[in-house]
Amino acid sequence: MSYFTENRGRYLEELKEFLRIPSISTLPEHKGDIRRAAEFVAGKLRQAGMEGVELIEGEGNPLVYGEWLGAKGKPTLLFYGHYDVQPAEPLEEWVSPPFEPAVRGENIYARGAADDKGLTLILIKAVEAVMAVRGSLPVNVKFLIEGEEEVGGEHIERYVASKPPRLTADAAVICDTEMFAPELPTLCIGLRGIVYGELVVKGAKQDLHSGVYGGAAPNPLMAVAEILCALKDREGHIRIPGFHDRVRPAAEAEHAAWARLPFDEKKYRDEEMGVIALTGEAEYGLFDRLWARPTLEVHGIRGGFTGEGAKTVIPAQALAKVSARLVADQRPEEAVAQIQAAVAAACPKGVTAEFRYLHGAAPSLVNPDNRFIRAAAQAMTEVFGNETVYVRSGGSIPIVGAFDQSLGIPSVMMGFGLPDDNLHAPNEKLYLPNFYRGIEAVARYLDLAL
Amino acid sequence: MSYFTENRGRYLEELKEFLRIPSISTLPEHKGDIRRAAEFVAGKLRQAGMEGVELIEGEGNPLVYGEWLGAKGKPTLLFYGHYDVQPAEPLEEWVSPPFEPAVRGENIYARGAADDKGLTLILIKAVEAVMAVRGSLPVNVKFLIEGEEEVGGEHIERYVASKPPRLTADAAVICDTEMFAPELPTLCIGLRGIVYGELVVKGAKQDLHSGVYGGAAPNPLMAVAEILCALKDREGHIRIPGFHDRVRPAAEAEHAAWARLPFDEKKYRDEEMGVIALTGEAEYGLFDRLWARPTLEVHGIRGGFTGEGAKTVIPAQALAKVSARLVADQRPEEAVAQIQAAVAAACPKGVTAEFRYLHGAAPSLVNPDNRFIRAAAQAMTEVFGNETVYVRSGGSIPIVGAFDQSLGIPSVMMGFGLPDDNLHAPNEKLYLPNFYRGIEAVARYLDLAL
Repeated sequence: MSYFTENRGRYLEELKEFLRIPSISTLPEHKGDIRRAAEFVAGKLRQAGMEGVELIEGEGNPLVYGEWLGAKGKPTLLFYGHYDVQPAEPLEEWVSPPFEPAVRGENIYARGAADDKGLTLILIKAVEAVMAVRGSLPVNVKFLIEGEEEVGGEHIERYVASKPPRLTADAAVICDTEMFAPELPTLCIGLRGIVYGELVVKGAKQDLHSGVYGGAAPNPLMAVAEILCALKDREGHIRIPGFHDRVRPAAEAEHAAWARLPFDEKKYRDEEMGVIALTGEAEYGLFDRLWARPTLEVHGIRGGFTGEGAKTVIPAQALAKVSARLVADQRPEEAVAQIQAAVAAACPKGVTAEFRYLHGAAPSLVNPDNRFIRAAAQAMTEVFGNETVYVRSGGSIPIVGAFDQSLGIPSVMMGFGLPDDNLHAPNEKLYLPNFYRGIEAVARYLDLAL
Repeated sequence: MSYFTENRGRYLEELKEFLRIPSISTLPEHKGDIRRAAEFVAGKLRQAGMEGVELIEGEGNPLVYGEWLGAKGKPTLLFYGHYDVQPAEPLEEWVSPPFEPAVRGENIYARGAADDKGLTLILIKAVEAVMAVRGSLPVNVKFLIEGEEEVGGEHIERYVASKPPRLTADAAVICDTEMFAPELPTLCIGLRGIVYGELVVKGAKQDLHSGVYGGAAPNPLMAVAEILCALKDREGHIRIPGFHDRVRPAAEAEHAAWARLPFDEKKYRDEEMGVIALTGEAEYGLFDRLWARPTLEVHGIRGGFTGEGAKTVIPAQALAKVSARLVADQRPEEAVAQIQAAVAAACPKGVTAEFRYLHGAAPSLVNPDNRFIRAAAQAMTEVFGNETVYVRSGGSIPIVGAFDQSLGIPSVMMGFGLPDDNLHAPNEKLYLPNFYRGIEAVARYLDLAL
């Protein structure tokens, strides 16, 4: 389609304009930029021919909504993206300033280039292209673009949970993931969920001197260690009763597909992670451990003395940040209850221990035979010229679970980022050929999703 | 002796003068006060009739030395105390300002009242009294008063380790401990030693996202927990090979003496410590666990995220502050080597772990039949009117080990503090009757140590 080629210059200029807005949602001083970014998105939706475009206000940053419902009797797709970005620090590590987009080689460098302004614009420009060329779309589309993805997405979560009728759709299309490797069109069909909380252990009424009381005083830090070791053994097996009951093993076909992925384990271990050995449940393959098995991790332990030198304190209290990644069909509330019961059972003498739940997200797994998934795979294969691969992600995208649970629709995760895009890090970039091909692939998808 | 009674007013004024000097060794801005306090001590030693009084300069705060060697052929006692104090924070919790000594009831309140200015002055005033009344002493005495006790005592440790001939003595007298209960004269005959270090665990080359890498990435915080649990079991037993080989069980007589101590375990547990249960090795009694058994404690664990909210990081590195209390006849260097070997053996897959030794002190245990100990017990019994009890302390006074190892002399620990003196806390105090009786008891000791 030569329309796409002709418009590349304009696409790039619009992307740069979007990237110049420092819409950092984690910093309150950027409230004005957040609004400018929301209005930029609304303008682009109107320009693409969307109707009923508006900012949905509420507690938090505005959601941007727009729709085109002229394809009577045809499926409806709900497009999701986000216009907020991470902070840019450390600034001194950026080759070019984070909010002055710079093209070097085939990449554009700026905060938000890949996460998620570039990918959000792909969706809008794809719809705009079809509307411009044909004056209508083959399917109905709705856009719901949020501005709090980097700070927990509470506004959109509440909004989706309220099941507003105007969000009714047949599938969601989420453009916030990456390709498994360059030139390899990739669909993500599964995400891990998460439950995150604090393990709080209390001992004496005040800090104690380890010389005077050591030998008789319970040590909450040691209790944290003992509880963690009771919850997960040295071989990476979670020892929480009932925790694995709902875990759905990956299908044989999925295992076979993973085995065909271009992957260099040695490079992954030595260069990407930089560890002396990969760990985890030895009876499962690497992709199973990363994508299809639950995990339990401790992220930090607070309490006592961690400064320079020596202080011989037995702290009165200790707190550990602990999360579990969940896989289909585990349920966050049930997992929390299981963890709480296991913590209570593992609590050593002399202290009290409880797991305080902070937040969570359900896992998700779509059937690759779903027609909206198959259509996306075909569209990407056609445009990229390579067979689309199916992967999962070990991370969590809470909105996917929300779409599933509150709207009852599957999410099609078309990824156009690359593994080295430096998300959340200095010198974030987007590979421009993927930006242009992404627009074509999503436009093609509108026909195939019919 | 009416001399002592007549001089109480002067003793109190001199104590107040000493307490008004904010000689806080942990804060560099008090360097001038440190020197003033050292010079105050030197002046008091001269006033007491000591000869060769001088400030021994070196790296750190000055040591104050003075001697009287006129008792030819008689034993020599080496008196130890310290003129530096802890910081006074939190200031708002003091009833009267920490460096404006205030007498309320029978107590004097000020930072350093009990730890250790009041007790150091007891030693000087006792010697002064005998010199004033008789013009000579029954034994030879040497004073070595330091100004870095609250910051590790490195200057005195180096000085003693150099075995200077002028420190030659038959016994050291240390006035820096407490009575087991009010009115109960107490000799401390054993101290635990300590080895303190950092358990450093390294995993990936940088922090990792627990969603993306969890299941395959080693977690250094979890490794810290696993290593700690391998080193000590849930019942408080240290599982370090060879660690207990040199541990000398408390003698039957010592056990019998401990059983007679006035002690309310319920009050200790519920009020003093405020815990729901005492812990530790169930097969040992409480005083054994506190005084005669080694311990292993973790004081803090650094790494990852411990702020408010949630961050899903697997840290590249974790560090735990770990110490072990040692008992006679354990040796610090050997204990460090044993811990290092046990850490290496317990290191889980995917990480490296090492125990980095920071500092230590040898345990000490004197034979209660030692003549200098027996003489001290008799002096205290006579002055206080109650039988002197023998206890140990679970804490560590490094100088005791240094006197033992470098000078080959036992330490007589005459304690005149009380358990509720608020050492290192707001409203530190000294019970004035103990101050006055302490002077008499030490003066009496000079005769009995003959």
